[in-house]
Amino acid sequence: MTEAPAPTSMSALQRDCPARLLLDQIADKWTVLVICVLDEGPSRFNELRRRVDGVSQKVLASTLRGLERNGMVERIVATSGPVSVTYRLTPFGTTLYEPMLALYGWTTRHIETVVDAQDRFDRRAHIPTR
Amino acid sequence: MTEAPAPTSMSALQRDCPARLLLDQIADKWTVLVICVLDEGPSRFNELRRRVDGVSQKVLASTLRGLERNGMVERIVATSGPVSVTYRLTPFGTTLYEPMLALYGWTTRHIETVVDAQDRFDRRAHIPTR
Repeated sequence: MTEAPAPTSMSALQRDCPARLLLDQIADKWTVLVICVLDEGPSRFNELRRRVDGVSQKVLASTLRGLERNGMVERIVATSGPVSVTYRLTPFGTTLYEPMLALYGWTTRHIETVVDAQDRFDRRAHIPTR
Repeated sequence: MTEAPAPTSMSALQRDCPARLLLDQIADKWTVLVICVLDEGPSRFNELRRRVDGVSQKVLASTLRGLERNGMVERIVATSGPVSVTYRLTPFGTTLYEPMLALYGWTTRHIETVVDAQDRFDRRAHIPTR
């Protein structure tokens, strides 16, 4: 039996591929949500934290730092008056919005189908013993 | 100061929204990779494990179970001859392939831009102290 050749379109399947490492960073719920908020306009940390309901301070800071390191988000430090830091998408970061929105859109469009499937699965998995 | 109304397009920002729970499950590196493999055709567990380089048995099993519970993947148990289990995308599961591919495609197209940004970020973050 011969091994099927690895399709060129699937290089992220290899564990050392940079695309795989990147996928690890962007295929993340918090990253999707933060980008969706920032696509509407720049935002301060506390505003982001309020809008992304349930995110912890630590996770939000780490998510923003990862996005900044990847060149997708920039920190704008206003030095006139009280120091304030605003986060915004870079032009490069805005290119990520479209695939993120596609994933997010799928989620919202199909949520009922998934909830029905989950109910059926859970009924099959928990057949009463008497 | 009045709170901006929550845009209807962002309901997954609310922590109790089902779309948010679903996003948590599908915005996951292993889920993206497994769906990309299964889109090429049904696969057995060990073949999947070999193709998704670096995935552990436990994580792959848990990923497949989540996909099965969500109605996106089905287990086909062949009972003639030695029992064998094959996993394949359901028709519903194939609808997830397009947004997954969009995310995956973005990743592969922009990997160099990201690596350059990371290098710049790391140089700024680690300025030698002497």
